[in-house]
Amino acid sequence: MRLSQYFLPTLKENPTEAQIVSHRLMLRAGLVRQTSAGIYAWLPLGFRVLKKIEQIVREEQDASGAQEVLMPTIQPAELWQLSGRYDVYGKEMLRIKDRHERDMLYGPTNEEMITDIFKSFVKSYRDLPRNLYHIQWKFRDEVRPRFGVMRGREFLMKDAYSFDLDFAGAKLAYQKMFLAYLRTYARMGLKAIPMRADSGAIGGDMSHEFIILADTGESAVYCHPDWLKLDPLNESVSYNQKELDPFVERWTSLYAATDEKHKPGCANIPDNQLLTARGIEVGHIFYFGTKYSKPLNAFVTGPNGEQIFLEMGSYGIGVSRLVGAIIEASHDDNGIIWPESVAPFKVGLINLKQGAAQTDKVCEDIYTKLNQAKIDVLYDDRSESAGIKFNGMDLIGLPWHLVVGPRGLEKNVVELKYRKTGERQELSIDSALAKLAG
Amino acid sequence: MRLSQYFLPTLKENPTEAQIVSHRLMLRAGLVRQTSAGIYAWLPLGFRVLKKIEQIVREEQDASGAQEVLMPTIQPAELWQLSGRYDVYGKEMLRIKDRHERDMLYGPTNEEMITDIFKSFVKSYRDLPRNLYHIQWKFRDEVRPRFGVMRGREFLMKDAYSFDLDFAGAKLAYQKMFLAYLRTYARMGLKAIPMRADSGAIGGDMSHEFIILADTGESAVYCHPDWLKLDPLNESVSYNQKELDPFVERWTSLYAATDEKHKPGCANIPDNQLLTARGIEVGHIFYFGTKYSKPLNAFVTGPNGEQIFLEMGSYGIGVSRLVGAIIEASHDDNGIIWPESVAPFKVGLINLKQGAAQTDKVCEDIYTKLNQAKIDVLYDDRSESAGIKFNGMDLIGLPWHLVVGPRGLEKNVVELKYRKTGERQELSIDSALAKLAG
Repeated sequence: MRLSQYFLPTLKENPTEAQIVSHRLMLRAGLVRQTSAGIYAWLPLGFRVLKKIEQIVREEQDASGAQEVLMPTIQPAELWQLSGRYDVYGKEMLRIKDRHERDMLYGPTNEEMITDIFKSFVKSYRDLPRNLYHIQWKFRDEVRPRFGVMRGREFLMKDAYSFDLDFAGAKLAYQKMFLAYLRTYARMGLKAIPMRADSGAIGGDMSHEFIILADTGESAVYCHPDWLKLDPLNESVSYNQKELDPFVERWTSLYAATDEKHKPGCANIPDNQLLTARGIEVGHIFYFGTKYSKPLNAFVTGPNGEQIFLEMGSYGIGVSRLVGAIIEASHDDNGIIWPESVAPFKVGLINLKQGAAQTDKVCEDIYTKLNQAKIDVLYDDRSESAGIKFNGMDLIGLPWHLVVGPRGLEKNVVELKYRKTGERQELSIDSALAKLAG
Repeated sequence: MRLSQYFLPTLKENPTEAQIVSHRLMLRAGLVRQTSAGIYAWLPLGFRVLKKIEQIVREEQDASGAQEVLMPTIQPAELWQLSGRYDVYGKEMLRIKDRHERDMLYGPTNEEMITDIFKSFVKSYRDLPRNLYHIQWKFRDEVRPRFGVMRGREFLMKDAYSFDLDFAGAKLAYQKMFLAYLRTYARMGLKAIPMRADSGAIGGDMSHEFIILADTGESAVYCHPDWLKLDPLNESVSYNQKELDPFVERWTSLYAATDEKHKPGCANIPDNQLLTARGIEVGHIFYFGTKYSKPLNAFVTGPNGEQIFLEMGSYGIGVSRLVGAIIEASHDDNGIIWPESVAPFKVGLINLKQGAAQTDKVCEDIYTKLNQAKIDVLYDDRSESAGIKFNGMDLIGLPWHLVVGPRGLEKNVVELKYRKTGERQELSIDSALAKLAG
């Protein structure tokens, strides 16, 4: 993409309405624009990040055996009356009357609807287990929406729902999601730590929040320092294993607790050796048994003809929230530092002398080659000063900056900068391209 | 995907609530389930089709130079009060009050919002032209939703909005979309004919509907028989051309008109030589000048410092509607016939003797190889009769059926059936795989 033709409205000044760094940077880097309180439009650069995050979430859900569906945003009130949540949900639920005065709502979550869909088709224990997920916009009418997409009203969530015949099946479904979540966050360059969670509004027994560490996190967390050494992508564990107990046990044996659940003296090391940090919740998984299947009358016929209510769990990832959370975890004074897997473009190509025949020619050539190699590149082909181009590229945080200037070209080199470390090296064009392809 | 583990709830009986064939087949083939009147959940098989259609739409929009954004579903009423459409839109607009009693609505379209976003950033003629699109759920509270996803209330639409400095620019933007639409439908295996359209609720001058021919179409259309010979994918025309007049003129010179606009005697051939058929609208493009930029005060500064109101057009494709429309255009008595580009899986693999060592082994081997070659395959590994498997595969309409049975294996052959023609051939396994990879 050529920046001169790209709709990328960056801001020079810090927007005053933004209280936290991710919100400030998302506005300044032209990722989103607020359209109502707590409701955002995703501009082209932000949209690309959102899609990359969504795709990583999708790939791990698919790999785990979950199947993607798509439920509508608008739900009938009746389903929520059956579960009893229509009244208890309070003002966070956006309630709507359609033209025929029927009570509808904008779904804040989908336990009732997926249970209703599932039970209408699945009648036999032979059709279990199943895990269905969707990635869809939700609405929670927060009284004071704030922190940008971190606590917005309209937000994109991945929610999965598992259906099993018995507790053992439900536990395995839960454990698969536990693994999927660890892998998902790790692929985004995040250190996410599972922490025991309360049942909350939805209820449940097996319940973990996934918390990433960020200095600016919303709540205090306490964890064993060894957490920092663990990498789920190094684990030789597969979604097809019949038995995930050892894996989950290992990954929950180190102490980790949110402020709410922290109990001094309960860690397996002295409290003063615990890492105390700030955390941001980016996912929540829980088992809730027959909490919804019973009121919605969702059962299958078992091997002996008996009625068995479905054992269920639900598993959420805040997809749009992750855009903010990743920035909270990965930025510096100059702007965003995107992990490569979610970066909107891998490479920012900077032409230091736009309009000069030699730099233009080299840049066009590099731009063509990167596109041919399917390496996402944003080419700053504007007639702006070097300073504006450098600062802009730092702000939007692309992982690699390839700088082409007349002085370098005299020596047949270009400069490759790694945004994360600031490290720069002079390379031949071919070496730079080879490095970016690696 | 293994069918034994797939959430694919097909129905044996024709659902009585469905009046048209695409609605019947979508319910029978387990593509969707209605969750409220005119509101559908997309089940795994239907979701895959929806995504394939969406991706083709996206690729052609991107190729044309349009840039993808994502606007929220919930909009503030104020924007629509500015344009004057808040009152005129009537009961089709789903109106909402949030917890603070602010007037909101579920967007039926996005002219106002995109204009508001655009004007807040773009101040200079140098930043034109731009075309921004999104693929997002919309809501129109139809008084009598019917025909399944063809006239639902919550529906997925691609809507693009072009911003130009003058009429010439807006015309070129319009023509690029004209080309993109022809290519988009052709890639889906559809014969879509552009027909002059009225301005309708949104207004405009240059205005074309794209209509596909289907015996069960919603309205009568009249067109020159030569339309059937044209294929936009054979045209050597590029989005980068500065001049698309000749292309558009050629593609609008043949007579084509909807019932509404048809004027006997006005075609360039005698009326009795016109093709009279039924059609389904699957897209609409229109130029509307400054209809929204003026009330929303959206202007740029021109080369001489003057204020110039943005020249705009908007361009819609009904993404979810296309799923139904494609089925209307491509089915037979046995079920759906998916064009390969939008098929949920390319291949249906049928094991005629599930549980027998030899057929199981061959099928597993084929299944592995197809997956490795990234050819989407649905493997019917259920313990069902051949008849049930054949009928089911015809119903869901995958393009290729690969049938593995003990008698064929004695001769070292499998049977490959092409759903569209019913043509069958016996081939070695390797030849069949090679054919499917082609």
